[in-house]
Amino acid sequence: MEGMTSEGSEDSTDEEVSAANAAFYEALEGGDLEGMVSVWSHTDDVQCAHPGRPPLRGWPDVLSSWQMIFASSGFPQVILTDEFVTRRQGIAWVTCTENMLSRGQTATAAALNVFELIDGRWRMVAHHAGPLMTA
Amino acid sequence: MEGMTSEGSEDSTDEEVSAANAAFYEALEGGDLEGMVSVWSHTDDVQCAHPGRPPLRGWPDVLSSWQMIFASSGFPQVILTDEFVTRRQGIAWVTCTENMLSRGQTATAAALNVFELIDGRWRMVAHHAGPLMTA
Repeated sequence: MEGMTSEGSEDSTDEEVSAANAAFYEALEGGDLEGMVSVWSHTDDVQCAHPGRPPLRGWPDVLSSWQMIFASSGFPQVILTDEFVTRRQGIAWVTCTENMLSRGQTATAAALNVFELIDGRWRMVAHHAGPLMTA
Repeated sequence: MEGMTSEGSEDSTDEEVSAANAAFYEALEGGDLEGMVSVWSHTDDVQCAHPGRPPLRGWPDVLSSWQMIFASSGFPQVILTDEFVTRRQGIAWVTCTENMLSRGQTATAAALNVFELIDGRWRMVAHHAGPLMTA
């Protein structure tokens, strides 16, 4: 596939990307701030768009948003469907559908999550979730 | 910035990424199918999520969606705000707010657009737009 490479020190697999994506949702479901800190890259250019909201930029603002979400105890149960991994050398992205259950209410969102391979581990650099219309 | 590289044959600039992003919105505004064809990579792993909809995958389905949108003559006027470019070697992504005016109605969406540097030109490999809530 055009541009698809996995060679030398950046050798990896789609499964490793998928595992990084799963770790993000495990941290979200568990309200696990330490897990969330571990999942993300901590650079100035990370970005996080919660459903319906404009993107937050830079690790401090992204971290604050998770602290607020977890403090509100409103974090949802999430069932992922329709996951699709695309991987290039050093960067990968995952699309998936987030099926969320929170306080008895359901919602679905389409997510695009970008990961960067840093020191051999895929770290989240962008999370972008948009609400899905129920057709 | 960690991971930020631009060397050798993959030398590029944020401005070139921004220009590729602008070309996408010019094609969208103009209902310009040829322009849209030129903007996108044509691989099996390109993905396109229109606001509120799950992602389409692969160039044939993505192309069909633009054909349908343009045939309906419902393509909007788009004013981009809050654009932010993140660039790595061979892959870049842009977040921006799409302020759309169509048939007298306004809507805003948060977009994350991923581009791949192919033969010296940034081609779109993922477009992901989610509706923004009006606060």
